[in-house]
Amino acid sequence: MENIGTPLEVGMLLYPGFTMLDLVGPLTVFAQHAKIYLLWKTLDPVFSDTGIAMVPTATLDRCPAKLDILFVPGGFGTADAMNDAQLMEFLKRQAPGARYVTSVCSGSLILGAAGLLNGYKATSHWVARDLLASFGATPTKGRVVMDRNRATGGGVTAGIDFGLTLLAELRGVEEAQMIQLAMEYDPAPPFDAGSPEKAAPAIVERVKTMIDLATPAAQVAGG
Amino acid sequence: MENIGTPLEVGMLLYPGFTMLDLVGPLTVFAQHAKIYLLWKTLDPVFSDTGIAMVPTATLDRCPAKLDILFVPGGFGTADAMNDAQLMEFLKRQAPGARYVTSVCSGSLILGAAGLLNGYKATSHWVARDLLASFGATPTKGRVVMDRNRATGGGVTAGIDFGLTLLAELRGVEEAQMIQLAMEYDPAPPFDAGSPEKAAPAIVERVKTMIDLATPAAQVAGG
Repeated sequence: MENIGTPLEVGMLLYPGFTMLDLVGPLTVFAQHAKIYLLWKTLDPVFSDTGIAMVPTATLDRCPAKLDILFVPGGFGTADAMNDAQLMEFLKRQAPGARYVTSVCSGSLILGAAGLLNGYKATSHWVARDLLASFGATPTKGRVVMDRNRATGGGVTAGIDFGLTLLAELRGVEEAQMIQLAMEYDPAPPFDAGSPEKAAPAIVERVKTMIDLATPAAQVAGG
Repeated sequence: MENIGTPLEVGMLLYPGFTMLDLVGPLTVFAQHAKIYLLWKTLDPVFSDTGIAMVPTATLDRCPAKLDILFVPGGFGTADAMNDAQLMEFLKRQAPGARYVTSVCSGSLILGAAGLLNGYKATSHWVARDLLASFGATPTKGRVVMDRNRATGGGVTAGIDFGLTLLAELRGVEEAQMIQLAMEYDPAPPFDAGSPEKAAPAIVERVKTMIDLATPAAQVAGG
């Protein structure tokens, strides 16, 4: 493990329609140990898929060449991001210099579309996971899936588990446990409906309809 | 339960030094069911305690008089917020018209400073919980503590449990479970150090030093 006094360089991609919690979970985990770049084409606020905006801190062309962590969140804007040539070019350029190439939720589809998961095990939101196969990845169930330097997290809230796992890799278990305690991450969901195996079938079907990622992914596959 | 077609009116306070995850957890839970107002004095970006900015959507004087949920996040900026006369005046004006008066993390100290928890059971981040007594509240351990129309959550990540609990109250258990599944909230922390009872004593001491809320609270108590 390197000197923990040196901040990690973490580049987190924003794009219109990203899911804010996908990003804010790991951001909060990394913050005390990292210099964080929120990246977009311009420095104008970027609207998430709840309509709430975050403010980028650096443009894509000002991103350091060597990041410790390159991170892509998911969101309802995933399909448009996959079809964005400038974004794809950015990811292809950054990934070779990054120590870890990472995502949460449907962000793995964006990494896949950039050709960065070919031959890797990876996960995604449960609704989207199987679509990873079309990018040469091996869809793998899990809150956090690590394969060499690819680290992908499951849907939305999995970003907290993802962040703590990656922080422990980079800074050690004790530092990760300190952050866990500071974030009081001792979860107690009031219901046990957080995975398709646990939720009632009718609820699973309604959520599938609500989050229909099949269509945009098909557009990309055909494009 | 009222017509679930009518969006909830949710007013979420921003202030310099708020903890973004305190707010983004419940925001994500409520989003599909709510019209969300991110409130601050101006519409300029507000910097959280990780240095990342969010963009308000309404000024304090444009907040609807009758909110379903009035929400205050915690953060390292808590003490300054407690000493902000305009903020205190806003909370005192809004609370009587709100269906639920709520907070996550040290946000409950801000509610307390505005006199809104006097005679209520309430919780906070574990580091700050006992300080609630100085505002006439009964410090109560719990991820989510409900007492009449006051709903307070524990530290940072407790905001997700808080959000789902409150959504179930307002929109029913099935709708809350749908949101839980959509957010894939089936937590699997890689370590079991999320509460002071579970973490190693040395880690608890280091976190207490890192998050020293005693000093600012004492300032307020003496001010």
